[in-house]
Amino acid sequence: MRQLKSYLGGQWVSGEAPMSTITSAVTGEAIAETSTRGLDLGAALAHARDVGGPTLRAMSFVERGELLKRLGKIIHANRDELIALSAENSGNTRGDAKFDVDGASGTLAYYGSLGKRLGEGTFLLDGPSEPIGRAPRFVGQHVFVPRRGVAVHINAFNFPAWGMGEKMAVSLLAGVPVLEKPATATAVVTARVVELWDEAGIPAGVISLLAGSAGDLLDHLGAQDVVAFTGSGDTGRIIKSHPRVLALNIPVNIEADSLNAAVLGPDVEVGSDTFQMFLNDVIRDMTQKAGQKCTAIRRVLVPESSVDAVWEEMVERLQTHAMGDISERSTTVSPLSTASQQRDILGGIAELEAAADASWTHPQPCPEPGFWVAPRLFRTDKGIDAPFVHEHEVFGPVSTVVTYSGSADDAVAIVAKGGGGLVSSIYSDDRTWGAEVLLGLAPWHGRLQWGSKKVYDQGVGPGTVLPGFVHGGPGKAGGGEELGGVRGLRFYWQRTAIQGDRALLEKILGKVEA
Amino acid sequence: MRQLKSYLGGQWVSGEAPMSTITSAVTGEAIAETSTRGLDLGAALAHARDVGGPTLRAMSFVERGELLKRLGKIIHANRDELIALSAENSGNTRGDAKFDVDGASGTLAYYGSLGKRLGEGTFLLDGPSEPIGRAPRFVGQHVFVPRRGVAVHINAFNFPAWGMGEKMAVSLLAGVPVLEKPATATAVVTARVVELWDEAGIPAGVISLLAGSAGDLLDHLGAQDVVAFTGSGDTGRIIKSHPRVLALNIPVNIEADSLNAAVLGPDVEVGSDTFQMFLNDVIRDMTQKAGQKCTAIRRVLVPESSVDAVWEEMVERLQTHAMGDISERSTTVSPLSTASQQRDILGGIAELEAAADASWTHPQPCPEPGFWVAPRLFRTDKGIDAPFVHEHEVFGPVSTVVTYSGSADDAVAIVAKGGGGLVSSIYSDDRTWGAEVLLGLAPWHGRLQWGSKKVYDQGVGPGTVLPGFVHGGPGKAGGGEELGGVRGLRFYWQRTAIQGDRALLEKILGKVEA
Repeated sequence: MRQLKSYLGGQWVSGEAPMSTITSAVTGEAIAETSTRGLDLGAALAHARDVGGPTLRAMSFVERGELLKRLGKIIHANRDELIALSAENSGNTRGDAKFDVDGASGTLAYYGSLGKRLGEGTFLLDGPSEPIGRAPRFVGQHVFVPRRGVAVHINAFNFPAWGMGEKMAVSLLAGVPVLEKPATATAVVTARVVELWDEAGIPAGVISLLAGSAGDLLDHLGAQDVVAFTGSGDTGRIIKSHPRVLALNIPVNIEADSLNAAVLGPDVEVGSDTFQMFLNDVIRDMTQKAGQKCTAIRRVLVPESSVDAVWEEMVERLQTHAMGDISERSTTVSPLSTASQQRDILGGIAELEAAADASWTHPQPCPEPGFWVAPRLFRTDKGIDAPFVHEHEVFGPVSTVVTYSGSADDAVAIVAKGGGGLVSSIYSDDRTWGAEVLLGLAPWHGRLQWGSKKVYDQGVGPGTVLPGFVHGGPGKAGGGEELGGVRGLRFYWQRTAIQGDRALLEKILGKVEA
Repeated sequence: MRQLKSYLGGQWVSGEAPMSTITSAVTGEAIAETSTRGLDLGAALAHARDVGGPTLRAMSFVERGELLKRLGKIIHANRDELIALSAENSGNTRGDAKFDVDGASGTLAYYGSLGKRLGEGTFLLDGPSEPIGRAPRFVGQHVFVPRRGVAVHINAFNFPAWGMGEKMAVSLLAGVPVLEKPATATAVVTARVVELWDEAGIPAGVISLLAGSAGDLLDHLGAQDVVAFTGSGDTGRIIKSHPRVLALNIPVNIEADSLNAAVLGPDVEVGSDTFQMFLNDVIRDMTQKAGQKCTAIRRVLVPESSVDAVWEEMVERLQTHAMGDISERSTTVSPLSTASQQRDILGGIAELEAAADASWTHPQPCPEPGFWVAPRLFRTDKGIDAPFVHEHEVFGPVSTVVTYSGSADDAVAIVAKGGGGLVSSIYSDDRTWGAEVLLGLAPWHGRLQWGSKKVYDQGVGPGTVLPGFVHGGPGKAGGGEELGGVRGLRFYWQRTAIQGDRALLEKILGKVEA
């Protein structure tokens, strides 16, 4: 059986028995094992901090960008191997595996280019300098400098490559070394990526990997470290309230649960281009990655008048999707990644079943063995008062149609009932209605998409996270923010106002405007 | 006796007995009492959210700025009354009271002007739009929109006017109503300010005041609310780990303990202009507000070679300061604000006494009654290994001289031992040394000041917080950030990426660049 190792202190190391078993989502059989027990995680963090940190901080943005480009190219050069591993471990269809692997290489390439744009400096000025007193000589200048710690990245099971790539790209470009901790259940792809990088050569201490349980990792954090986490709200709360995180006021970025919504406007006619866009987005999000995307649409708001037609069209589309042999092109729905995911989602489905006014189940029996769940559609006519629907994210090929009046106010209130989300989308060609809903939803989301007839054939749907736009959301979604081009670097930087003699500051900081 | 009331739900209300007593720092006698017991704080927050929020969000930045200017003018018009109240409650000399009261009106005026600059909109675009796909028609635009909640501001005892003014100015300009909770012990000035505003007329629900214990306030927070706190790290941790704050991922900004340092460069000759600037800053911070400023210099790093001369000069200057009748111009050191502050600081002084290699006490006996502590100077030759000095902030007229080698590396290491601070300052005319220390200290601070011969007569020292520059710091200092002009508004905003048809987005968001 494959033994996963961790890459800590510049060495590939293994923990002591007992080992954790990693299973195939398709066969349910063990394919790898790993342990982090007994590893000196304090020393691992210190190595990243003391060896990787100075190396990265001495590199210019251009040089850091070149490193990222190289990391992305290595992933791309080994794409087929990684896609095969993703199939073996997570049970991903080729399409779903590509979405993850190409997401990783694409994001690394994007931040590589951003490095080139940011130029030859090692830190960034923030705005022009401003005079402090009467004399123009005495000024203050804000700068962004990299924190002198390690970025601990705790990633989710659903994106073993992209999840690591997107956090790492931002942190390394900012000048902060990373320790990546993937979800153990799907760590095979992640570990292989780091292995490929190590074989090609990476600067010492810049990238570390903890392939398994986090153990006492957080107990060794320092005041200049940061933690970014993607996963459940419950685990997020455990991290945020960890005694050392609290004692040292360590910044924590959390991307958690989200009841993303798609809202169909009352003006949209069934069969129109805007309607097709709506349908494409909803069905893509229910089936891609078996609905195991944090950005997937969980709630579909449809005006009462068109709900029957929408339901019919959705069912018709979903029926064209099939589970089965994931190596076959005809298979468009993957199994879930783990047995515990399957358990959780079946539990969620039972709750929705009890709460819903109507439901539909994909007629195909689930393949066996493997962690399959058939696509499910629910409907509630209870709007904002519907139980469970607005509270709990069922993280599989599952969505609920929520009928509503069609009014902008109702749409905003029902979506906001979700308590804050990563992304929602609206579909309308009515400018007034659209503006009202969009601006009403904005404070509750990190990202919004407005589908309309002029762009019906554009974009990759609200479910695709793009590196140039922020990813995160308030409230239930965790309150964090990642990506967004240079915006994402902020988390890894300290902003400092430096006051002094303009001429002196210009000498050490570069051009300081008067 | 004066009864303080809270201003909640548009009414002046009082809680039930037993009342908390507020004492005079000069006489130790009760001067006011207050209670928040039994007040419906959930209803108070809902009023701010539902009445104040929509009003503010409908106002343009210009209109919000005009409101702030008016609030600032009312403070300025009643300056003498507020200074007198500050003397009566906190025992502030006229100079110290002015520092607080003028800080409040000045910050409100600054953000008033910023409102004018931000213009007629009600929210802000963040950067240009960027194309998403191949077609230039489909773009994403980041916007900053006000959160739809209340900003709960929990302020410190040392700045009853400025502490409220600086947080409120930023929040109201951002479009978020405030509930201000001053420290009970010094709430007399704060309550009077809100009373003056109410008499002059303020829009309903925009400003609320809780004059006393916070009670169950945090239990009523909503997902769109935020909390900004200034005070001890211990209380900060209680707020950050409050179950509701964790459950809803409510943003918390903390400004806490800080062992601010002043570092004298090895090139600076005793008696030079740069030396005088160093001495002015250190002595001002030890005596102004009796050292009860979160930005005051607690550690004075001096090269071994000049430590005797520095000590002598410091003692000479400190001897010119006097405690006494706070209405007399000759009195330049106020008492501490409360009996518990006095107790804490005497405890801290005992610890420093035990740890120090030398110490000096202001020869004047403390006046009686009142919460006086005589200025104290300590010295340690143990550098980075000195016990207590780098761990604990003694929040009074107290500072410790730490001898060091003069090397830039040693200076950075010793200052960083403080674990993250609000502001530190360096004094040198050596460009190489200065650059090394400043850039080494930057990741550990929110603000730095470089004193040098060309600016020796400029500025108001590192201890004065200016609205145009950020205030806050990493690690022990709380990890927060306030002020900094428009930067401070970020905390009260949700950033949202809006994707869609460029023409449609331009219509609803204003000009969106291609």
